Order: sequence, then structure tokens, then C-alpha cells
Amino acid sequence: MSAQGNNGSKPRNAVFIGKKPLMTYVTATLVQLANEPIVVIKARGKSITRAVDVAQIIVKRMDTLGYKIGPVKVGTEIVSSEDGKTRNVSTIEVSISRAK
Amino acid sequence: MSAQGNNGSKPRNAVFIGKKPLMTYVTATLVQLANEPIVVIKARGKSITRAVDVAQIIVKRMDTLGYKIGPVKVGTEIVSSEDGKTRNVSTIEVSISRAK
Repeated sequence: MSAQGNNGSKPRNAVFIGKKPLMTYVTATLVQLANEPIVVIKARGKSITRAVDVAQIIVKRMDTLGYKIGPVKVGTEIVSSEDGKTRNVSTIEVSISRAK
Repeated sequence: MSAQGNNGSKPRNAVFIGKKPLMTYVTATLVQLANEPIVVIKARGKSITRAVDVAQIIVKRMDTLGYKIGPVKVGTEIVSSEDGKTRNVSTIEVSISRAK
């Protein structure tokens, strides 16, 4: 996060993948890519698959736009559920940038 | 694939994630890591999330073993279904190696 120039609580160059239709996130990422050189697609748990799908749609199906996939990071987040227990949730971060 | 020293149809240092219990793949990966310096965890479609889970279990929960996550690659595979249509399926490859 430190290298993202994040000066608020919500980083401007990240898209969080949730339960909306896939193309919602494709569009959101493309809009951000118009203003930022690098956009990071983030997801956790079962949305990880969808994050990869979004990245692939942007790079393959829209290859005339000229974007490429940069570093992919996987990690673990500790989530505390309401009964006080903690669970580990896998996370993914896929960087998308303009192909030079 | 080319850099994996694959001399048969089944690469020895890859684990394909399917529908079995997660710990099956954790064990399979650990067994291969005993013989190979790098093991690649591969998955496609909805199993992508499970591939990340397997990698995280090996690295975090079993951190006394000293393995680390190497490069993560995402891609697309074209799958032809029985009705003759082709679909794009997202894929992931997570490299696990010994932490130096």
C-alpha cells in the first residue's frame, strides 16, 4: 500500500471485487486505468477466481486497449467473525498496467 | 512449462487442484517439495481460490518448514465444451519453493 500514493482511506487505484456482475468490475477498472498508470484488482475468499477473470477479460478480450498483467500477489488476511473466532482468508492482488 | 524439465506427459513438479479436500493437495505438494526445489500449484476456474488457499496453508500454517511463495502467474485457457462451443477459463500457477 505504501507505494500507491494513498492519501485517504480509500486508495484510488484499487478495485475490490465483490458479488456484482463481472463486467461492473471490468468497467470500473478500465475507468481507473484511464487516470492511473497502475490499477490493482483486489479480492479475497471465493472472489479470487473472479478477480482473475476480470484481469483476463481486460487483457485478452480487450487487447486492442493495450493493457498487461503485472505482478500478482497472494496473501492471507485474518478476519474475526461475530462469534469472536478468527479465520484466515486468502487474498489476491492483480496489477494491471498499460503495455509499453 | 518449458523450463520445468518435463520429459513425460505429466510434469513431476506440478500439483493440479481439483475437488478433493484441501489437505490432500497440501500433502501432495509437501511430498513433491521433499524431492523438487520448486513445485507449481495449478488450478483453473473455481479451483483458483483453493490453489491460493493451499499455497497459504503451506507457507503460513506450516512456516516451520520454511517454504515461500514464488512467482504467481494467471492466464486463460480455451476449453471446448461438448456442444462444440469454446469457453475461456481463467488459470493460476503458484510457485512454492524453499525459503533460502
